[in-house]
Amino acid sequence: MGEFELIRRFFAGAPVRRARLGIGDDCALLADCPPGECLAVSTDLLLAGRHFFDDVDPVSLGWKSLAVNLSDLAAMGALPVGFTLALALPTLDETWLGAFAAGLLDLAALHDCELLGGDTTRGPLAIGITIFGHVPPDQALRRDRGRAGDDLWVSGELGAAALAVRERLAGRALAADHPARARLERPMPRVALGRSLLGLAHAAIDLSDGLLGDLGHLCERSGLGARVEWPLVPVSGALAGLPQRDQMALALAGGDDYELLFSAPRAARETISRLAVNGAGGPVRVGCMTAEPGIRILAADGTPLVTDDIFAFDHFR
Amino acid sequence: MGEFELIRRFFAGAPVRRARLGIGDDCALLADCPPGECLAVSTDLLLAGRHFFDDVDPVSLGWKSLAVNLSDLAAMGALPVGFTLALALPTLDETWLGAFAAGLLDLAALHDCELLGGDTTRGPLAIGITIFGHVPPDQALRRDRGRAGDDLWVSGELGAAALAVRERLAGRALAADHPARARLERPMPRVALGRSLLGLAHAAIDLSDGLLGDLGHLCERSGLGARVEWPLVPVSGALAGLPQRDQMALALAGGDDYELLFSAPRAARETISRLAVNGAGGPVRVGCMTAEPGIRILAADGTPLVTDDIFAFDHFR
Repeated sequence: MGEFELIRRFFAGAPVRRARLGIGDDCALLADCPPGECLAVSTDLLLAGRHFFDDVDPVSLGWKSLAVNLSDLAAMGALPVGFTLALALPTLDETWLGAFAAGLLDLAALHDCELLGGDTTRGPLAIGITIFGHVPPDQALRRDRGRAGDDLWVSGELGAAALAVRERLAGRALAADHPARARLERPMPRVALGRSLLGLAHAAIDLSDGLLGDLGHLCERSGLGARVEWPLVPVSGALAGLPQRDQMALALAGGDDYELLFSAPRAARETISRLAVNGAGGPVRVGCMTAEPGIRILAADGTPLVTDDIFAFDHFR
Repeated sequence: MGEFELIRRFFAGAPVRRARLGIGDDCALLADCPPGECLAVSTDLLLAGRHFFDDVDPVSLGWKSLAVNLSDLAAMGALPVGFTLALALPTLDETWLGAFAAGLLDLAALHDCELLGGDTTRGPLAIGITIFGHVPPDQALRRDRGRAGDDLWVSGELGAAALAVRERLAGRALAADHPARARLERPMPRVALGRSLLGLAHAAIDLSDGLLGDLGHLCERSGLGARVEWPLVPVSGALAGLPQRDQMALALAGGDDYELLFSAPRAARETISRLAVNGAGGPVRVGCMTAEPGIRILAADGTPLVTDDIFAFDHFR
């Protein structure tokens, strides 16, 4: 089976419905954005052994590959339109490929996000996705729009995905049906929440590198600092019973949560606390943005907790 | 130097001018297309050892990585807008990265094509680019719009890049200043030509896999066949003196030419033959599209030339 046949067979089953032209030409042609909205674009490259374990279930891998990109749209308040897929495969394993495509296209269908084009080649397993969405440009949830005094909010619960990674790396892999495995392997991008924050939130980012790292990006781009009250942080139930130090490391610096972190004015507090997230609990207020630079994590009694040994994941550190 | 510092240092020197928001947020935000035009999107993934030699000059690699994507826009008649870059690097070699960025951004500047966002990670060298352009959707040069009786045209000259690859693989690498090396390493995407074909050409494709392979795609998508007159094919001067068999293999099936192959009605013949390509000679008529399926290569006397042992490159063959 040749390259082109492969693409057709696994990925080009359905013709595009919204785009003007999908897979099969030199370019795809997108439909216009809704009036008053513009195109939002994000790209991610996932590599075996770095972003996922070599033996990951391919259905989950397909799901997660798109989920991390949908999460970038969510963090901008953008609604999904479509995506391109660049795929390097070490071998042409049709069973694997069918499972990967199923996971990918399942999540795509949930978000009405069309596969628009792609490129396949033989090489070390790599998955490059570029995703497109639309958002009203003046309301987009940019990282640089936080204001001093804004509340800081987090959706969902933190730390479960990092627990699954930590246990696996320590040779104590969690069972396949452990809830923390699902959080790692099938994150649910907060697209609806992101959209509902337009006009409410000032700034937002998705949690891929861990709360401290991503809050650092938000602070840096907004020229602000932040205060996080540790007792308010929604630590995953999967971390119950662990020492506080471990809970802090996993929930604050663990990464792979794909929840939203956002800042919003106090006036929006009530409205935001009523927002449900895909049927789960709504966002939780964890602190505030400060004019003073730096990020402080505070204990229940207001004393700062030391976090020097907790740092966000950096692919080149 | 961390991942984020790296991106900033090498790739985010200039703020975006056309896009609403560039590097540094969860998504980039694009400007609207000109009235009556829509967004064209293409993606390519280049891997060391497959799409380029491991020891390739990084300036050339940066150039070519963008060139192959610009060539996809050209083949649609789209004008460049911007691109995203996903980069996997085995090590953080600042000299290499500076050279790669220089080659990439030089070509980007020539085409007013902005870097909009990216993703970097450590891993086997891989370069994933997704490119954006704009084109009037009804005039876009689609592969499926060829008509029986159309003339078939090719821009530039064919086979030089394939010669450089062949000599290198045979242990006889051409000198760095050999013209065939430039054709391989710094192809010049035919963006202006592609645009000038709007309203003239019916169908187009860029020559990445070799004329026979890419013509095959054009024929398949248009539901047609084609006849190519071998004496009309613009064989690169770099192939002079080679046996005809070698010239045919390199010029018809060699790949990496990044010229345009297009079909157009006979009525457009005079207009098209006056089109210059970036200062080089204009497009050359090499044959026609036929209602009869299959591709035939004809000698000067009209007899078919056997081409069974000439085939397009397929990454999974």
